[in-house]
Order: sequence, then C-alpha cells, then structure tokens
Amino acid sequence: MSATAATDFADLERALDERRLQVEATLRRLVAEGQAPAVEAAIESSLFAPAKRLRPILSLLVADILGGDPEAVLPAGCAVEMVHTASLILDDLPSMDDAKMRRGRPTCHVLHGEAGAILAAFALINRAFEILAEGWPGRPDAMGRAAIARELARAVGTDGMIAGQSKDLLMTDKTIDFSTLEFIHSRKTGALFMASAEIGAIATRARPAEVAAVVTYAKNLGLAFQVVDDLIDVVGGAAAGKDVGKDLKKTTFVSFSGVEGAGALAQELITASIAALEPFGPRAQPLRELARYVVTRRR
Amino acid sequence: MSATAATDFADLERALDERRLQVEATLRRLVAEGQAPAVEAAIESSLFAPAKRLRPILSLLVADILGGDPEAVLPAGCAVEMVHTASLILDDLPSMDDAKMRRGRPTCHVLHGEAGAILAAFALINRAFEILAEGWPGRPDAMGRAAIARELARAVGTDGMIAGQSKDLLMTDKTIDFSTLEFIHSRKTGALFMASAEIGAIATRARPAEVAAVVTYAKNLGLAFQVVDDLIDVVGGAAAGKDVGKDLKKTTFVSFSGVEGAGALAQELITASIAALEPFGPRAQPLRELARYVVTRRR
Repeated sequence: MSATAATDFADLERALDERRLQVEATLRRLVAEGQAPAVEAAIESSLFAPAKRLRPILSLLVADILGGDPEAVLPAGCAVEMVHTASLILDDLPSMDDAKMRRGRPTCHVLHGEAGAILAAFALINRAFEILAEGWPGRPDAMGRAAIARELARAVGTDGMIAGQSKDLLMTDKTIDFSTLEFIHSRKTGALFMASAEIGAIATRARPAEVAAVVTYAKNLGLAFQVVDDLIDVVGGAAAGKDVGKDLKKTTFVSFSGVEGAGALAQELITASIAALEPFGPRAQPLRELARYVVTRRR
Repeated sequence: MSATAATDFADLERALDERRLQVEATLRRLVAEGQAPAVEAAIESSLFAPAKRLRPILSLLVADILGGDPEAVLPAGCAVEMVHTASLILDDLPSMDDAKMRRGRPTCHVLHGEAGAILAAFALINRAFEILAEGWPGRPDAMGRAAIARELARAVGTDGMIAGQSKDLLMTDKTIDFSTLEFIHSRKTGALFMASAEIGAIATRARPAEVAAVVTYAKNLGLAFQVVDDLIDVVGGAAAGKDVGKDLKKTTFVSFSGVEGAGALAQELITASIAALEPFGPRAQPLRELARYVVTRRR
C-alpha cells in the first residue's frame, strides 16, 4: 500500500519539489541584509531548515489554476512562509512548548538563545510586511498588496494564529472538548492556510465566489494537515524530525478520537476540501492531488 | 531654574497633553478586538500604561507644520506607538533586560507571563501593519500607506531597532566605544523617531528636502531623548517610573561621558536638531519647542 501510494504521487512529488526550490530561491533573495549578525544567523537557521513550504506552494497552485502568473504571487507566498517560520520559533520557546528539536534540527532558541530567537521571529514578521509594502515587478499594485497584507494580518492576529496559540497554552494539561480543539487548530494552522489560498486568489483578481471556494478548500486542508501531524507525533518515530511525543500534556486529535478516529477525521476533512473545488472542474486537479497527498504523508 | 522652565513650557505642556489624549483615543479605537482574552489583557496593560506618546505626537506636529491634516496621519502615528510598545515589552523580558517595572507599573511579563507578553508584542506589530494596510478615511491612498509601512518596517528591521537591541544585548557587561553606543541608540530609539517624522511628512506629500530636514531633526532629537533617559536613570529616583539603576551593567551615555558630559551632549544634539529646521522658518516653532522641552524633562 505504501509502495503504491509512493508511485501514485511520484509526479506530484516532483512538481512539489520544483515549487519548493522556487520558493526557497525566492526566500533567499528576499531575506533582509542588515547589521544584526546574531539575529540574522537565527533567521538563517530557522528559515532555511528543511521544510515543505506548503503555504507558499498553496498560493502558487491557487494562482496557477485561476490562470494567474505564479511569479506574481511568489513574494507574497514567501511573506506567509516567513510569518509561519516566526510562529514556529515562538511556539518552541521555553515559555511556550519548550521544544528542543524542529525540522530535524535543534530549535532556534537552543541554537541562538532566547533573545536571539525572539528577535528573529520579530524580524521575520516585520520583513514579511516590508516585502508586501515594497512590492515587486508586475502586479499586484499597491491596493492589491494592501489587501494581501490585510489578509495576512487577519490570519496572524488576535482572532487568528495568536488566539489559537494563546488558547493552546492555556489548555495545556486540561481536558478540552472537540470545539475547543477545533478553535485552536483552525487558528494555529488553518488561518495561515486560508490566507495562503486567499492571497493566491487576490493576486490573480479572482471573483468572490472563487476566493470563497479556495478558502474553504484551504480551511479543511489545514485542519487535515494538523490531524495528520498529530498522528505522526504518535506513530512517526524519529522520522518526524521534531520532538515526538511532546504533545503528551496536550489534547490532540489523536488523544481525543484515537488513531483510527483521527485517521477517519483527516479523510473526512480532505473529502470536504476536495468538494469545495467542484466549481473549478478539471483545472483544480493539482489542488485535489495536493489534498490527497497531505493526508497520506508520513513526515 | 526649574520653576522658570516649568512656566516657559506651560503652553507646550498643555498642547502636548491635548495631542496625547487625541492619540490615546485613537489607539483605543484602533486596538483589535479578538478572541484571545489573555493576550488582549497584556496588550491593554502595556499600550494604555501612562506614556508620553512622543512618537505619534511627532508625526502629528510634522504633518501640522507642513500644512497637512493631522487627522490623516493619526492612525499611522498610532501604528508607530504600537510597535514602540511591542519593543518595550520585548526589551523587558527575562531573556533581555529582565526589567520588573516600566511606566510605573510591573512589566508586561510580570503581570501576564512570558508567553502572554511575547504574544502581545507580536500582536501589536501585526496590528500596526494591519492598520496601515486597512487604511482610514481620507488620504494617504494605498501607495502612500505602503510608503509608510516601508518606513516603519525599515525602522524596526535588522538594520533598525532589532539591530540596536541585538547589539545592546551582546554588549552587556562589555566595554564599548562611543560609536558602538551611538550605533545602539540611533537604532533602538533614533530609528522610530526618524520614522515618525518621515511618516508625518509622507502623509502630507512633503518634498524630499522637507522630508530630509525633519528626519535629521528627529534623528538628533531621538538620540538626545536617549541621553536624557540615561541621565534620568542615574539621577531620577522613583519618579522615573521604571527600574532606576538597571543600566549599571551597561555602558550608557552617562557612564561613558559622566553626568556633565552627557548633559552637554544632549544640548549639542538638541542644537543640531533645531538647526535642521532652519529651512522651515517660523512655522517649525512647535518642533523647536518640543526639542527644548525634551532636553529639560525629568521623567
């Protein structure tokens, strides 16, 4: 089964790899050169650790299926990836999850000290908004980029990622219900996935119905991604590249529903995700494949 | 002398107070309502602690003397104040200056925990850029607001505030030379002062020479402000409202030049600051008064 799955996704994996390299080359070009070597080293080790780059790839794929120019959305996708990296740095801090390993490497504060890690996270979110303010050759214009910045800020803010993280910390060691679990992860993970899709759509001047459809797709995809992450945390072993079992003090989708229940939930979410793409017909095929791929991943 | 000074500045103090209330009412209106009560409480206690609001007031005064509409620049000035507050929250963290008191109250992490303080700082910088992306009635348009966001990000980034803070932390307990001391404070304090002035000028479509003049004014004003801060830290007593003497492990302008030398330096910087206003003639009088006031402050 695992061998068959690998064969089925060989083309997709090649395509994702190509996009990933494109994202990483752009990140490299966009990372700020400053006069804070200690902070820049912390940014370097976190931003260029091995990563899937799913969020910017999502922006690229959405722009692509809507007939937009992926190049035009690439810097905006990289801004999302910078904010995502900043959020990982903060999540791992001693005052938060106190994680020692991430993406197969020691976490940012382990390598660069707490102050270095916090300043790196701050520099990354700042640079993300700077990129959107500066712009890049071609569309979107200043109004389009302001719309993108608005979406990104909404996803990060006190009803987005920050609300999810705050609730997650408050609920450590506590029993929580399913709706709280969903509150946390629809914000911690879902919000940036939704913003990534929306940004890809905004950059190609999609119609409101198209924007709504890709956002629904991304919302379910993001939650499915998190459920699979919880599964990997339980069954993944060292291949997961981060502290496996670190979530023991937290309610996860697996501790809540069991391994089988969480697997079924991930499948349901992916079905909902794919259903949202119906209006696009065959041209949304890459997004459908991505969804099926996300739910079968093992790391 | 002190009584004379108080009398001399009575009108200015009334005017500053009026501006301060205007800034605080706008901050109140602009602060995000979310679903992260713990983080929002941390924002509330830091953003609405007693404060001078000098940075947004500087934006307002610059817009005013250039014939612009202060209302049009007010939200941008408040965005700067949010970023400034975020930087204070971070500076006070145990992994940075480990300060217990600020603006006459326990620091943010003392009241709300480290994670709460870090998320509050992150939420504040995020909201600052969200405000600039959203815009407000009247000018500046999306292009003008993008220029403002660019300036703000530059002031914060790895050649701005973050570089100053990083160097400051690295140099704790070390002997440093004057140019390093200037590097640190022209970035930690100067950069946001310069951005505040520039933002006031951008919002009123000032000519490049006018922008350059107010930026030079603000650069010297910001550094003078920091020198006076160091003096207050040594001689201020409890009236300073923060941990007095906390800078003992750091080289300050006072430990470097002595009380008299630092006083002379502050005066020199204020003279340079006022000299930069020459092209504006009499209409820059409020900025001149502000500069003279800053150097005489006792808290």
